[in-house]
Amino acid sequence: MQRKDFDKIAERLRNWGRWGAEDQRGTLNHIGPEALQRAANSVQSGKMFALGLNFDKNGPQPPGMRMNPQLYMTAIAQVMNPNFPEVVFSDDVVHMSLQCATQWDALSHAHYDGVLYNGCKACDVLSTAGASKNGVEHLANPGIMARGVLLDIARLKGVDRLEGGTLVTVDDLRAACDKQGVSIQAGDIVMVRTGHIDHFTIDRNMMSFYMNNPGVTTEVAEWLYDHSAAAIAADNLAVETTPMESFGGSEMPLPFHMLCLREMGLPLGEMWNLSPLAADCAADGKYTFLLAAPPLAITGAVGSPVNPVVLK
Amino acid sequence: MQRKDFDKIAERLRNWGRWGAEDQRGTLNHIGPEALQRAANSVQSGKMFALGLNFDKNGPQPPGMRMNPQLYMTAIAQVMNPNFPEVVFSDDVVHMSLQCATQWDALSHAHYDGVLYNGCKACDVLSTAGASKNGVEHLANPGIMARGVLLDIARLKGVDRLEGGTLVTVDDLRAACDKQGVSIQAGDIVMVRTGHIDHFTIDRNMMSFYMNNPGVTTEVAEWLYDHSAAAIAADNLAVETTPMESFGGSEMPLPFHMLCLREMGLPLGEMWNLSPLAADCAADGKYTFLLAAPPLAITGAVGSPVNPVVLK
Amino acid sequence: MQRKDFDKIAERLRNWGRWGAEDQRGTLNHIGPEALQRAANSVQSGKMFALGLNFDKNGPQPPGMRMNPQLYMTAIAQVMNPNFPEVVFSDDVVHMSLQCATQWDALSHAHYDGVLYNGCKACDVLSTAGASKNGVEHLANPGIMARGVLLDIARLKGVDRLEGGTLVTVDDLRAACDKQGVSIQAGDIVMVRTGHIDHFTIDRNMMSFYMNNPGVTTEVAEWLYDHSAAAIAADNLAVETTPMESFGGSEMPLPFHMLCLREMGLPLGEMWNLSPLAADCAADGKYTFLLAAPPLAITGAVGSPVNPVVLK
Amino acid sequence: MQRKDFDKIAERLRNWGRWGAEDQRGTLNHIGPEALQRAANSVQSGKMFALGLNFDKNGPQPPGMRMNPQLYMTAIAQVMNPNFPEVVFSDDVVHMSLQCATQWDALSHAHYDGVLYNGCKACDVLSTAGASKNGVEHLANPGIMARGVLLDIARLKGVDRLEGGTLVTVDDLRAACDKQGVSIQAGDIVMVRTGHIDHFTIDRNMMSFYMNNPGVTTEVAEWLYDHSAAAIAADNLAVETTPMESFGGSEMPLPFHMLCLREMGLPLGEMWNLSPLAADCAADGKYTFLLAAPPLAITGAVGSPVNPVVLK
Repeated sequence: MQRKDFDKIAERLRNWGRWGAEDQRGTLNHIGPEALQRAANSVQSGKMFALGLNFDKNGPQPPGMRMNPQLYMTAIAQVMNPNFPEVVFSDDVVHMSLQCATQWDALSHAHYDGVLYNGCKACDVLSTAGASKNGVEHLANPGIMARGVLLDIARLKGVDRLEGGTLVTVDDLRAACDKQGVSIQAGDIVMVRTGHIDHFTIDRNMMSFYMNNPGVTTEVAEWLYDHSAAAIAADNLAVETTPMESFGGSEMPLPFHMLCLREMGLPLGEMWNLSPLAADCAADGKYTFLLAAPPLAITGAVGSPVNPVVLK
Repeated sequence: MQRKDFDKIAERLRNWGRWGAEDQRGTLNHIGPEALQRAANSVQSGKMFALGLNFDKNGPQPPGMRMNPQLYMTAIAQVMNPNFPEVVFSDDVVHMSLQCATQWDALSHAHYDGVLYNGCKACDVLSTAGASKNGVEHLANPGIMARGVLLDIARLKGVDRLEGGTLVTVDDLRAACDKQGVSIQAGDIVMVRTGHIDHFTIDRNMMSFYMNNPGVTTEVAEWLYDHSAAAIAADNLAVETTPMESFGGSEMPLPFHMLCLREMGLPLGEMWNLSPLAADCAADGKYTFLLAAPPLAITGAVGSPVNPVVLK
Repeated sequence: MQRKDFDKIAERLRNWGRWGAEDQRGTLNHIGPEALQRAANSVQSGKMFALGLNFDKNGPQPPGMRMNPQLYMTAIAQVMNPNFPEVVFSDDVVHMSLQCATQWDALSHAHYDGVLYNGCKACDVLSTAGASKNGVEHLANPGIMARGVLLDIARLKGVDRLEGGTLVTVDDLRAACDKQGVSIQAGDIVMVRTGHIDHFTIDRNMMSFYMNNPGVTTEVAEWLYDHSAAAIAADNLAVETTPMESFGGSEMPLPFHMLCLREMGLPLGEMWNLSPLAADCAADGKYTFLLAAPPLAITGAVGSPVNPVVLK
Repeated sequence: MQRKDFDKIAERLRNWGRWGAEDQRGTLNHIGPEALQRAANSVQSGKMFALGLNFDKNGPQPPGMRMNPQLYMTAIAQVMNPNFPEVVFSDDVVHMSLQCATQWDALSHAHYDGVLYNGCKACDVLSTAGASKNGVEHLANPGIMARGVLLDIARLKGVDRLEGGTLVTVDDLRAACDKQGVSIQAGDIVMVRTGHIDHFTIDRNMMSFYMNNPGVTTEVAEWLYDHSAAAIAADNLAVETTPMESFGGSEMPLPFHMLCLREMGLPLGEMWNLSPLAADCAADGKYTFLLAAPPLAITGAVGSPVNPVVLK
């Protein structure tokens, strides 16, 4: 993609100012009371799923990439009161990359031309203290809940996992909507299943997971925009195809990230474990549900780990 | 309280084996499909609230206590591809106590006599690697969602904040239920508001918040047991009264923790910011709602930060 | 001090290019074989002293300042081989500010006008990866050893500790040299004792130590330059007077830092515990000795903790 | 080696009580004024060498082992005073395993039968707070300086590097002493060169370095004892042969560690980069020198990174 073509799309999708000059929640603004009530109404069987990977040193990030979580015990069966040595507590500390496993990219995670979502200048807002604008704490308050719609592209294609490098197109999403009998409405969160996470969750093969990801195309950003989607999440590394070498012919690396995070203000959920949920959806034919995926309000952070939960 | 009296209560409330010898979710087992459907049905206006404090170095833990979160930027507007220096990303790392702010105590957080919930021996399960049983990852999968019931004890007493050291009794909880027109049902999560968090959130006075907390009495554990509550959360430091010096006359420090975590297997939510939610509940008279408070699945951790979200 | 007056001094002391365009060791270049042999020759009684503070959470940095070291045990009496459970090891991790206690400022620690020692542009060399030029690893290899000369200004003035805010002038240093019968030679490391560290080491009063430090004046930088000193260290927070408010009338905050680190390339040793050594020097009248104070070669770091050792 | 044979040696080498019931410095007590003066006298040419590896994420520990250092910048060219925006500082934090690269094992690093050096019971002294006895801070104060004697076994054998798994015997050490014209005296620190570190420093091959190390035999501990050596250091992973599988036929894993750390109280220096020093020693025929290798006084730590410096 040439930069001038990218720029045309970017201009069309740009939501800057749409929700006020000070807005830092972007397309989460699509999630109003009506959308939330619709989310609650989609619950029909009282089944709960968690979509978060475990956070530990055996995480999906290969050595040399982001730091997998390190858990440190600061108290192990430690006595509280010497008069009662049989009564004890344990305490712990974690040290982790905020992008190490199941997570949200905040709107400050990536940008170009020195400007972030809603026109914030990078030089004004980014420092060692984090992002003074568009930090993840704004996604965290009042949180992220919505109706989730799972689009199971792997199942659509009749495979367990899409091949590495496979592009998930708008046509694929439309076909999945048709096959599954769902449509995206304003304020929904779209969840795209490629099956790619199974390289990690089933095979425990970090490198197979990390390298050569299937993912959505740039035009999917336009489709999200046109449907007033609130956010997108997927079970691969970066929602869109990676590694960046895939963009060798493009004048804009990670174009989907840029359109979503910077132009639209649309959060990206990465490395969500969608396979067990998808199996249940395939079994009962219900692909919509209440999704609660609240990031931690880590002040100034450009991302947050999350344990998304689904109630069907 | 004498140890022999404590032991009698402990014996009655002990849920060990109730959900199988391998159970590590305790009273979260009360949250079945029916309870979850009831949670969804309690949504009536599509209003969303987040109850998590911000996670940063200005957290509620005074110096010398648990470590408030430290955010480190590992990339600030860093170029991805030297051919496109205008396209950049930012990345970050957090270092934090898992009990530093709004959080869940896992069942492994405290115990006595060398044995944890469901009869796990401390010497077998606790090490520098964390808790090999009763770690927070078991609460995280499939997550924590339920109907939440807010019991606003401060409002019941006609004050903004309960005085430090005030005991919240079963009578208080009953009175709040009556006044608010709610009852606790199996699988509900009880949320007790003391107003104490306002010392931190409004006054920014860490020490006032930390010292001399109002909190629930030991008998509240029995009341939770009798109602088959799934969990309890509060807006103070430790749900029950602290500091531990309050237990000077007791032969069991932190008796409520012990009854909940060790006997019942009932998770404790601490430092939840309930005041904005409570104001809304007072305004619309609705004190029940869908609560989603999924811990991160940090393998072996004895607690997890959380950003609880409420949908009314 | 007006900026134009500062600039005149800065220009005179600027060592850029003196040891080559690629030099990153600055005045440590003064320490040649002759100076090192002189250091060894100054050993006369075989007495050893360590000048480093303990590194732990009770360090000299008050809460909210730099992070005092956190030690985490990653193994406690952990079995190596299950066949031999009686044979165990322990392991640990530290998390600490590099400027938390006894330490060296690297040449990259402070600068002005966007340029560091030897003309390195800040925008080219400073990033989240640290300092690609003038990092502490260059001071660390081949290390820092030299003849140390202790100038005991507190003793000169007949006090245990200089008053907070006291200026240590060139006249003071000359008077100490005269009284002690020493002279500074090329490649020596000058060690200035104010007694101020005793607020921390004896009184354990972090705030008294942190606030209102006695320290050297700007002209001391000129004196070091004229004597071809290799480095300076002191027993206060920042060698020069702090807090920076002391520089209220100056157009250059921390002028001594700037002259030393940026112009001369002269490392600053801070928070060295000189009092026990000084007592011994007063007793035997010997104020020169071999000093070994090797920083850790932390790649790209702007400082390093150190445990300086002295052999008299 | 059978346990009963090991026990006989252990009993003979045990220094418990030799320097008092409270001693925590072990064989460093051999370093008295005479030994230190001898160290200073060994300086003859004023040449300085640093033996520490760089501390960064490209360290010698392969992924999944100890954590290589992570450097975080907490300030990058940050303004001190808004009135003078051109004057800035930078600051940093490190997170690292204390055994990640060039380091000292403290006496508390390994033990068996529940007892550490000088009869300290593990259950009394080891906890999440570290080692309350035999912590590295006792080695750090008053530091570690001595005459160092390099025994270049690789050169003795006429190779650049000993083969993986090669045992360095007492005969080898004696032969090296003879060839080099040196003898070990009380209070010396013995430095054994295998060349193995070149797998890391030259080839940058972590796994070749980590796996299949040449190293000293158990009897070398006896030889050190008989010569009243103060410490031993080597350029391999663990001074003795590793991995532990090498001890398959032994009833005591890491027997050399146990004899040194637990019985004798003799610190072990690991992963010291001896090759450049050795080349110089070969050139000038001088294998003795002043060695300063002061650990950081990290309270309660079981090891410390170090940048050993040598003055010839």
